[in-house]
Amino acid sequence: MAVRLAELRPLSAVPGIRLGTVCAGIKKPGRRDLVAIELAADASCVGVFTRNAFCAAPVVIAKRHLQQQRPRYLLINTGNANAGTGELGLNDALACCRALAARAGVEPEQVLPFSTGVIGELLPVDRIVSAVPAVYGALSADGWNDAAHGIMTTDTVAKGVSRQIEIAGQTITITGIAKGAGMIRPDMATMLAFIATDANISTALLQECLNAAVNASFNCITVDGDTSTNDACMLMASGRSAVPAISSSHDPAFGAFTRAITEVCIWLAQAIVRDGEGATKFITVEVGGGADDGECRRVAFTIAHSPLVKTAFFAGDPNWGRILAAVGRAGVPNLDVSGVDIFLGDICIVEKGGRAPAYREDQGSMVMSKEEITIRVELGRGNCRFQAWTCDLSYDYVKINAEYRT
Amino acid sequence: MAVRLAELRPLSAVPGIRLGTVCAGIKKPGRRDLVAIELAADASCVGVFTRNAFCAAPVVIAKRHLQQQRPRYLLINTGNANAGTGELGLNDALACCRALAARAGVEPEQVLPFSTGVIGELLPVDRIVSAVPAVYGALSADGWNDAAHGIMTTDTVAKGVSRQIEIAGQTITITGIAKGAGMIRPDMATMLAFIATDANISTALLQECLNAAVNASFNCITVDGDTSTNDACMLMASGRSAVPAISSSHDPAFGAFTRAITEVCIWLAQAIVRDGEGATKFITVEVGGGADDGECRRVAFTIAHSPLVKTAFFAGDPNWGRILAAVGRAGVPNLDVSGVDIFLGDICIVEKGGRAPAYREDQGSMVMSKEEITIRVELGRGNCRFQAWTCDLSYDYVKINAEYRT
Repeated sequence: MAVRLAELRPLSAVPGIRLGTVCAGIKKPGRRDLVAIELAADASCVGVFTRNAFCAAPVVIAKRHLQQQRPRYLLINTGNANAGTGELGLNDALACCRALAARAGVEPEQVLPFSTGVIGELLPVDRIVSAVPAVYGALSADGWNDAAHGIMTTDTVAKGVSRQIEIAGQTITITGIAKGAGMIRPDMATMLAFIATDANISTALLQECLNAAVNASFNCITVDGDTSTNDACMLMASGRSAVPAISSSHDPAFGAFTRAITEVCIWLAQAIVRDGEGATKFITVEVGGGADDGECRRVAFTIAHSPLVKTAFFAGDPNWGRILAAVGRAGVPNLDVSGVDIFLGDICIVEKGGRAPAYREDQGSMVMSKEEITIRVELGRGNCRFQAWTCDLSYDYVKINAEYRT
Repeated sequence: MAVRLAELRPLSAVPGIRLGTVCAGIKKPGRRDLVAIELAADASCVGVFTRNAFCAAPVVIAKRHLQQQRPRYLLINTGNANAGTGELGLNDALACCRALAARAGVEPEQVLPFSTGVIGELLPVDRIVSAVPAVYGALSADGWNDAAHGIMTTDTVAKGVSRQIEIAGQTITITGIAKGAGMIRPDMATMLAFIATDANISTALLQECLNAAVNASFNCITVDGDTSTNDACMLMASGRSAVPAISSSHDPAFGAFTRAITEVCIWLAQAIVRDGEGATKFITVEVGGGADDGECRRVAFTIAHSPLVKTAFFAGDPNWGRILAAVGRAGVPNLDVSGVDIFLGDICIVEKGGRAPAYREDQGSMVMSKEEITIRVELGRGNCRFQAWTCDLSYDYVKINAEYRT
């Protein structure tokens, strides 16, 4: 069902990074559901995390451990989010860290835990702990494709991408994987994404790069407006590339590296929308002419969250009145609607706040029949712009979410 | 499909108010789609209107005319919202007012226009103007039930209610009708509601009464989070009751009258939710223990708008993790989740921020199997409360909105 999202291609190994994936039987037997990622001893690792106040136990522990030690392992399970589980959940996440740490001969604080799946059920710790030796034994530089499968929940397609950039005649490799299809409305970061590179870069610069990349990618998508309790996006750098260390944010190499990381994040973020629960269309919402970035964001996300707009896209119905109504309720202060133009693809449908005189319904229908559609709103009150990506709302969205736990 | 909403019963006539309803062929032939309401010459009439910046042409004209003259007629069409129609739309709304004014021998400014239906198409003015003599000729004190049918769009049940109160041994009658099923997230007022009474009360006091009633009713509901371009709630008072004039807001009669109007508004608002597009459940979301009203509202509406919460209710699945995630993302500043309790019906599911130890899934399933369900969230940080009403998100919501214009 995913919208123009190809099956996962072979991902590039990243020197200094190994991954293992096994079936731990967490929710369904025989499903790959436990992934470990090993980082070289001197690798940098940074993350951004959900701002949901009910952030999950593994998020609490991962943030705490990141403050305490340089991470050597990430341990990720699907099938259970370990969220809304209180003190027991924190103990469970720690128990998983301890098990992997003991097997690998590192400190428990050098293991970061991640979980995704149903909220509010206790983690089956025994099954995870029992599978730790197997997942440790499976660690391999070529483990990316299996890992991309091992973190899926309602995803229909495994999501991953590799890029290489040349700097000073040498190569930096970047590979990222992500999961996510529902409860997608990133705020700071979203879902689970793990991106690794062999670049040689400090933790502080790596964090600066990730913040910029996430703002231009995961923070621009929504499937259903629901920010998850477990969102995390991790960026790891092993330092194994022959490219000289990136020394400061003024280093031209930092710009090239950040652009490449941003491209990978945008690819993964768009892949999540293309595989949005029940998605049949991939929709870009561009808002320009805003007085500030905030109002452009509000208008874009109000459109992107409107169930009426999303069902019209599912139907392929150019019911642009719903887009106009969403713009009008987005809370732009003192919006002069007579300055607003709206485009569906290249077709001007609203001009100066009213139906464009030249617009004909068949033009709108033509645009709506496509799998990828751009809505563009020009507010006519400034020079700020923002772009969000979303999908439509279909029968299958209801089906998937009405049947998720059964 | 409406949730425990009975067929319309006979509504009480309100002395000084007459209504007419006819088929003008606006969208579908043979469907009652044009309603006129006549007010006695000395009646008071007040309204609250949508705050959508793209408010429809009839809303602009109705607000303008209310400033200019004491209204004598309301003219309401369904099948076309006359919204997003620019200058042409304003002219069309005025043309309808002029036609009825000419027939009735009043000024055009004494006619208030209202429209509901599809956004962005020009009003078929000729059909409305042609039907004006018929709708004028149909005016009758007993026209309430026909009018309730004549304002429906995707509603499956006509909505109306009558109440009588005794003051000083005399009777005041109140009758109200409303329409609305989708694009329901009132902000100031919603949808179309027309409420009339024979009370004797000034315009200023009537407005005060309506504002209070709307805040406690229409502003507490949501079906899909989409605020309409055409929302209007009108309250008319003919002054024909034998009850002495209500003289001030300190008059005990004002309190009794406002309570009765509020009851009528709550009944109509809940009826809209019960008949929400595709609704199979009626859901009350109560949020208490807030530091201020605003944060209680934000939490209640975040839950009420969450597609994941709404699909879980459709499925009858006590997937309370989704409720918890919605509370967590509602933007309550510095929320201490360890103070949060959540109840499904009378069952405590979340205690101090985690799964309640005594909770068993079959208890949640029992509550979720009912047609009317209350979610209660206690934030544990203050004494403010707010209550919202909403419905679930079903296949039929998608079906109705994917096929609306076809």
